[in-house]
Amino acid sequence: MSDDEAILAANAAYYRAFSAGDFAAMSRIWAEDGVSCVHPGWTPLVGRAEVIESYRSILTSPNRVRIVHRDDTAIVTGDDARVVCIEVVEGSALLAATNVFRRVGGAWRMVHHQASPIAMPIEDNEPTPPRGQRLN
Amino acid sequence: MSDDEAILAANAAYYRAFSAGDFAAMSRIWAEDGVSCVHPGWTPLVGRAEVIESYRSILTSPNRVRIVHRDDTAIVTGDDARVVCIEVVEGSALLAATNVFRRVGGAWRMVHHQASPIAMPIEDNEPTPPRGQRLN
Repeated sequence: MSDDEAILAANAAYYRAFSAGDFAAMSRIWAEDGVSCVHPGWTPLVGRAEVIESYRSILTSPNRVRIVHRDDTAIVTGDDARVVCIEVVEGSALLAATNVFRRVGGAWRMVHHQASPIAMPIEDNEPTPPRGQRLN
Repeated sequence: MSDDEAILAANAAYYRAFSAGDFAAMSRIWAEDGVSCVHPGWTPLVGRAEVIESYRSILTSPNRVRIVHRDDTAIVTGDDARVVCIEVVEGSALLAATNVFRRVGGAWRMVHHQASPIAMPIEDNEPTPPRGQRLN
């Protein structure tokens, strides 16, 4: 498996854990050190304890939303990698997401996540807009 | 200068270039390879050409906003580093920002930026809320 494939697989595993509400898997996905996270609308979280606790809260919430990811693009530099992608929340709202990974002991672990709303919702069955196009 | 100090200085230089509308400085701040950017409300931009062009457009716009950064926290791992911080836009609106840097030839160059709105504006003269606290 190439680094790109491994990173895209790690990115997919994050969304699988999120969709399944699988906190144990989510906890394994995140690295032990150097982690941070910006959930939509939140101020930054820094450190594993804060980040993991936020996921415990989100994944066990009765209001947990369904998220599908698409348009994943991997950027790999040595032992560090990023995926930028689009999150489709509950089939309509769109977020732009960045997931940062670091290779630790041969495995890609997540060290940062940020998702932010895209200004204008687009229909899920419309063609994907050009990457980076401003939608409003 | 420690790595943390160097990273925080690089982060400050980014906002200085932004505030001054200094496109040449902004262009030098960004790395040559492996860059991506998510401006507020935008879909992800990938690659130096797209990212730099977006800054040319933003920095030369008559509607360019004033941004002050605060609560900078540096996370350094080898040749890769992140700063999470708060952006105060035009003295009121708050964004949560992540700036990712990579050490290239001894200098820290920016490889990723993302800023996303914080749900509830807070008064600039109020105490900073605990990092990571959900504001709504």
